[in-house]
Amino acid sequence: MSATVTEQIHRASERKTFKPFDVPKRLLFSPGPTPVPASVLQAMTKTVLGHLDPRFLQCMDEIKEMLQYVFETENRLTLPVSATGSGGMEAAVFNAVEPGDDVVVCPMGVFGERMLSIVERTPARPVVVKTEWGEAVDVNRIEEAMKSCNPRVLALVHVETSTGVAQELAGLAELAHRYDALLIVDAVASLSGQPVSVDANGIDICYSGSQKCIGAPPGLAPITLSERAIERLRSRKTPVQSWYFDISGVEKYWGQERTYHHTAPVSMNYALHEALRLICEEGLEKRWARHEQAHHALVAGLEAMGIEMMTPPEYRAIVVNAVRVPEGVDDLKVRRRLLTEHNIEIAGGLGVLKGKIWRVGLMGESSRQENVLRLLDALQQSLNGEGYAGVSGVDAAEHVFAS
Amino acid sequence: MSATVTEQIHRASERKTFKPFDVPKRLLFSPGPTPVPASVLQAMTKTVLGHLDPRFLQCMDEIKEMLQYVFETENRLTLPVSATGSGGMEAAVFNAVEPGDDVVVCPMGVFGERMLSIVERTPARPVVVKTEWGEAVDVNRIEEAMKSCNPRVLALVHVETSTGVAQELAGLAELAHRYDALLIVDAVASLSGQPVSVDANGIDICYSGSQKCIGAPPGLAPITLSERAIERLRSRKTPVQSWYFDISGVEKYWGQERTYHHTAPVSMNYALHEALRLICEEGLEKRWARHEQAHHALVAGLEAMGIEMMTPPEYRAIVVNAVRVPEGVDDLKVRRRLLTEHNIEIAGGLGVLKGKIWRVGLMGESSRQENVLRLLDALQQSLNGEGYAGVSGVDAAEHVFAS
Repeated sequence: MSATVTEQIHRASERKTFKPFDVPKRLLFSPGPTPVPASVLQAMTKTVLGHLDPRFLQCMDEIKEMLQYVFETENRLTLPVSATGSGGMEAAVFNAVEPGDDVVVCPMGVFGERMLSIVERTPARPVVVKTEWGEAVDVNRIEEAMKSCNPRVLALVHVETSTGVAQELAGLAELAHRYDALLIVDAVASLSGQPVSVDANGIDICYSGSQKCIGAPPGLAPITLSERAIERLRSRKTPVQSWYFDISGVEKYWGQERTYHHTAPVSMNYALHEALRLICEEGLEKRWARHEQAHHALVAGLEAMGIEMMTPPEYRAIVVNAVRVPEGVDDLKVRRRLLTEHNIEIAGGLGVLKGKIWRVGLMGESSRQENVLRLLDALQQSLNGEGYAGVSGVDAAEHVFAS
Repeated sequence: MSATVTEQIHRASERKTFKPFDVPKRLLFSPGPTPVPASVLQAMTKTVLGHLDPRFLQCMDEIKEMLQYVFETENRLTLPVSATGSGGMEAAVFNAVEPGDDVVVCPMGVFGERMLSIVERTPARPVVVKTEWGEAVDVNRIEEAMKSCNPRVLALVHVETSTGVAQELAGLAELAHRYDALLIVDAVASLSGQPVSVDANGIDICYSGSQKCIGAPPGLAPITLSERAIERLRSRKTPVQSWYFDISGVEKYWGQERTYHHTAPVSMNYALHEALRLICEEGLEKRWARHEQAHHALVAGLEAMGIEMMTPPEYRAIVVNAVRVPEGVDDLKVRRRLLTEHNIEIAGGLGVLKGKIWRVGLMGESSRQENVLRLLDALQQSLNGEGYAGVSGVDAAEHVFAS
């Protein structure tokens, strides 16, 4: 019998066979994910333990201790949320707000806008301090906004990945606390690459992502809450609007009770453990200095090539570099050459900056001399290939590394 | 100068050094996480690609195709949510409901209660069909509840991991659709271990977890939405209450637009790709048969040992076995022996069943003859060690495997 027409039609639910997935080598200079050290990848091949196995609980305790070091905090409520950085953002906002609260949000790029979008999904009222993309938020304007409402939360991004701007953190907590508001800081891009200093800066809720300067694969969002933030949790009158991101539930699993909440992403926690271990081994001060030197070397190299930074020096982040695409150069073509001819990824601009800037992450493993030099060399070749007659930036960068 | 007292006090934020994390071999019979095949663990050592790298996008496309096969669906909106199974549950509920909706929820154990707890955090009204733990939900009672309100959603769990009960799925969609409600089914425990058959059963939103029968580490929640569910998404009047779990946002990244939403957990997706690939290679029918045989062998073995199943045969799940702790036997002591003397993990009871039952997951890799026999042998030794004079169940189980 011949097959009917229906049988001949390709069905999505049909069994297919695929080959094991093959991955090219890449050197990532996007602002996340970043290159993951081999020992961190290897950590994920360890036997998956049960989420209540005594050995896994010990791994969790060590992760917590190392996160306290990396956040520079004594906060007892410090743990990785089982989601990517944006999940950490949602956890931070959802746990802090209740119906009727005013929340001062200060977007200065895509990720600040995301924060606003999350606040808009809560029953709280956002009070927005808008800033031009490429600039930092003016503290006087924050104060004006705080005065104009009954703020319960002040929320902003430390390093805005979409613009390469770093917000000054000193003084913000004093301002927030004067109005009895919690200070939420997004340290997704910056943590362990440049100082965040949770306790010294008085930050009440700070979160990050595993795949940026920390150097693990994406999938976890470390978070830490001050006593003031914990008090806010304890005195809530309404449940947190997400069960998954309800820190009071997750806390019981990460604390002494060990009450099951959701099944922890075991292998991702192995990776985070190893990535944090490498950070502890290097030490934060040395790590910050390494990131700072790589950043200055990159900027020197780019400037020698006649390429401008978008962000003025006074706002400039260390870990994400917003670079102007030179006049007459096609953003996409250069990035395609970098990827296909050099196995190097840099990121394009987001939103209104699409096609206008490149975003170069110097985070974790990418912030090393050999990588910065390789990038500058590959970039020059790719630009030359597209008819841009730039000189090499390698010498200028080497000069910074030698100093 | 001598150190001040403050300096001598141990600070949580101090730098510490840890050794690389060492993990014992374990054979997991908990109902998730389950043993992960070596090639799945190895897949996570591949270079982390950028989340917009053409090669990673191809990996995503293949994952989607394989998920369609595993869910037995033609649904175009099929993707893994970047969270564990409970995140999938939250995504399913949050995307389906709006203020003023009635949601018929049918808890028959911990995970149904979790569903209810999530509905209670939405502006929808839960209409609860309560069932004794250890029984399945009575369809007539569901119909009564549907009649009593204006249901927009009917939500229940296929295999309730806390009680080992499997809910019959046939007929539920017809019932839900008669009232213009969406049918949400939790297939966290069952998917690829026993038939779920999304299209044949008319399920509108179905989700699972990577760490159960699928056999990847915990951290992803595959989800699929029918055209009816997509229509519901498109006609929403209010935003989904979670940005992270808003499927309309995630969909644009997994679909043809490739618009960045959040950074995908790249390495976890590599693992899921390989785990799904192994399922496709084995074929669902063969895989279901393997699980069914392992289940019957375990039951025969336990009964030969004089140990009873809690769940009556008519409700009994294939993939999770709720086993009564024999009279006079200490739950914890036996489980501790299994873990420390045999490197085997089984789970205890949750909630009211704590101390009364063991939960034995036969999911993915644990559902193999050698593993079932090893478990029965180790269980007998551990019970004997605690003074329970049971005979071996190995012969009875072997008999089933030979048949």
